[in-house]
Amino acid sequence: MVSFFFYPKTIAVIGATSNPKKFGNAVTINLLKNPNLQSEIFLVSRKSQEISGVKCYKSILEIPKDIDVAIILVPAKVIDEVIDQCIKKKVKGVIIITAGFGEINVEGKKKEVEIAKRCNNAGIRVMGPNCVGIQNLDMELNASFIQTAPLGNIGMISQSGSFGCAIFYAMERQYIGCSKFANIGNGIDVSFSEILEFLNTDENTQIICVYIETIENGRKLLETVKEIVPIKPIVFLKGGRTNLGMKAASSHTGSIATNYKMLKASLKQSGTVLCESTLDFLTALKTFSFLPLPQGKNIGVLTNSGGSSVLFSDKAEQFKLKLVEFSHTLIDKISNYLISLVKIVNPLDMIGGADENTYYKITKLMLEDPNINIVVACVVIPPFLEMKSDEHYRGIIRAWNDTERKKPLIPLIMFGEEFKDLREFSKEEKATIFYTPHDAAFAIKLLIERMKFLKMLKE
Amino acid sequence: MVSFFFYPKTIAVIGATSNPKKFGNAVTINLLKNPNLQSEIFLVSRKSQEISGVKCYKSILEIPKDIDVAIILVPAKVIDEVIDQCIKKKVKGVIIITAGFGEINVEGKKKEVEIAKRCNNAGIRVMGPNCVGIQNLDMELNASFIQTAPLGNIGMISQSGSFGCAIFYAMERQYIGCSKFANIGNGIDVSFSEILEFLNTDENTQIICVYIETIENGRKLLETVKEIVPIKPIVFLKGGRTNLGMKAASSHTGSIATNYKMLKASLKQSGTVLCESTLDFLTALKTFSFLPLPQGKNIGVLTNSGGSSVLFSDKAEQFKLKLVEFSHTLIDKISNYLISLVKIVNPLDMIGGADENTYYKITKLMLEDPNINIVVACVVIPPFLEMKSDEHYRGIIRAWNDTERKKPLIPLIMFGEEFKDLREFSKEEKATIFYTPHDAAFAIKLLIERMKFLKMLKE
Repeated sequence: MVSFFFYPKTIAVIGATSNPKKFGNAVTINLLKNPNLQSEIFLVSRKSQEISGVKCYKSILEIPKDIDVAIILVPAKVIDEVIDQCIKKKVKGVIIITAGFGEINVEGKKKEVEIAKRCNNAGIRVMGPNCVGIQNLDMELNASFIQTAPLGNIGMISQSGSFGCAIFYAMERQYIGCSKFANIGNGIDVSFSEILEFLNTDENTQIICVYIETIENGRKLLETVKEIVPIKPIVFLKGGRTNLGMKAASSHTGSIATNYKMLKASLKQSGTVLCESTLDFLTALKTFSFLPLPQGKNIGVLTNSGGSSVLFSDKAEQFKLKLVEFSHTLIDKISNYLISLVKIVNPLDMIGGADENTYYKITKLMLEDPNINIVVACVVIPPFLEMKSDEHYRGIIRAWNDTERKKPLIPLIMFGEEFKDLREFSKEEKATIFYTPHDAAFAIKLLIERMKFLKMLKE
Repeated sequence: MVSFFFYPKTIAVIGATSNPKKFGNAVTINLLKNPNLQSEIFLVSRKSQEISGVKCYKSILEIPKDIDVAIILVPAKVIDEVIDQCIKKKVKGVIIITAGFGEINVEGKKKEVEIAKRCNNAGIRVMGPNCVGIQNLDMELNASFIQTAPLGNIGMISQSGSFGCAIFYAMERQYIGCSKFANIGNGIDVSFSEILEFLNTDENTQIICVYIETIENGRKLLETVKEIVPIKPIVFLKGGRTNLGMKAASSHTGSIATNYKMLKASLKQSGTVLCESTLDFLTALKTFSFLPLPQGKNIGVLTNSGGSSVLFSDKAEQFKLKLVEFSHTLIDKISNYLISLVKIVNPLDMIGGADENTYYKITKLMLEDPNINIVVACVVIPPFLEMKSDEHYRGIIRAWNDTERKKPLIPLIMFGEEFKDLREFSKEEKATIFYTPHDAAFAIKLLIERMKFLKMLKE
């Protein structure tokens, strides 16, 4: 098992430095700055006596305690000596951040294979080389040179470290976050499959996401995925889906990229969510973070803007979703709250004057209706009639809370990203917002697919 | 011509009110609050003596001046009397904001046809009914009940008023804006084609965009579009592209929706940009607002993040774009500025350490290279090595400025929306930013298509 990498009692940073322009400094600072981290940190540096008040050792061999994980940042040309010392020290695992191996040329490839062999023979597991490191948010461990991910319930493996950075920025904005994060770079030993298995056992990980470019042992990966998907949703984004992308990927990681068509077919069959854009990837993470699965596929839509429900309906059909016809009972109930200008059909256009209370009442009626499984509440924030920019959303969420959040509720607030009060309320309430018809419809597609997948397994 | 609607010397608001919960108040306030508006505003109200210090008349007939445009907000049931008075007053045009006509039932449809006939017989042009009104940003005229659009060079016609609201929020965020805006609701008289013709003659309008659900006179619309597209790019978003969407649209506007396949084919042939999502619509507006057309289709890509260029390459192939092979001359020049770990291929992954100066140098080399027509500069903002979040972008834009912005430069800052310094610098520089690989690749597709279209016309 590779779980010890995420729960090290002792960590050595080999190649620590006080120079803020070096990655060895970034890792050191990231490890030292979290006051609640229980792991003991030891620094190894040839030049410095101490960094940020922490003593430096000349070599890992001088450290008076056993070391669980050594993080290596020395230049590629001196790596052999450091590996020797790690073997002598009997560390459990090394994370080689150093770049300049398989991703640059054939000799580099040879070199990294040799390192893996030597370590494995000595019983040492290896992550990397050419990686940014790992994070365990649940113990405030940031053993990487990138920023600490926002805290959440997503376990993430990314073949690109910088894609991790970028996704963290996006996650922060959407109030979702990670439980664990791993970037294993060239991946010469510890594999995606092993980390996936670990994430499956991790109780703080409810959702797993993967950014991958090249797949080494596809059969094993698929087996692992198949095992996990019935328990936790897995969201995949594959870089290198096309010839151009594969060419770029193989230059990036030094591996041969995977045939996407085959991968796509296999992953789809396994129940994995396969995204084809960064935005869809983010939407999938939001969806599984905030929404329960539906019991059926009937959708009810309400709006204060005809245009938004037309645009949503287009996307709904594109994703093969189904807007249900309202029952007579529901029509009767709804008609009590709306002016006579409103035609009571699905999607229900309550026109511009609909306020917080109208949204509350109608959302609640739809959530309580036995023929509706999923409710989409569209809003264009009205700049008129003294309405508050968050009032519709407040009405929607109140209705959701009153019905104990049993059904998935999709708030579609058209281009509402800039309204801070709205976003802050969503954070407070641990509810989400979708900002475009595409995202809202895609979210529903994912929920229905997962509902069907889990039902099929039971049959 | 309908241009007088956008340049009225005198305006009467019939149905003005001091009640902030009424649309009659929103229109009144919007007209009165712009101190630079040259039009003279007259208010007509049965109940109020004055609103915001402006005298109210009991009827338009009491106003001592000729009226160019009357904006009507009285309830549908008393509209006949108001129309009679407008005819008597010999106004040039009316904007009927009042709803409750063709969009609700057959009688409403009959009623609005009758209104159109009476007005036209009296030489009065009609916009509406069931609309939010119009705006001419160039004279600070907001003759609508929605918020004033941000100022810019886009002429917009939207069949959905609230879609206008939503797009204004998005435009504001992207530092683009409108020259003119029109929402004509049920469109019983003034047509999309007429407004398009007006926008074509308007020198402050450089780009035209259209949100449309139902098309009344398709042949005429297509003819108009064909005439304009060689002069100004037209960006279309059609609501009701699918059966579900068409059903929603026909309930929304009371018209029968259009066959999308036929429309799509005709519009594509005409050189119009047809978008299939709200985000693509926005991206198209950004693209034509900020970027020059290329001279060819060869793309050069640089990045500090392999993952981002892989993801961009995937989208590039999806849109049939072409990454060019670097010439030996370019490779030689580039190699002066990069560390030996970097492989000089296209896309060029300069890895995480690349800073402002590296971006400046390499972007400039690519922009100056005769074999490259379009440069894509990808960035994942590095959270390490004390780099500033806007430094890469500053380097990129400096290179663009140094080469007089002759070639299209696409900054792709992965999920960088939350960096205020970055966005403010982009505003200052009148440059744009794309945040996802999809948007960047889609922008290039549009530029190349327009380049080809204009070339074809010349041949």
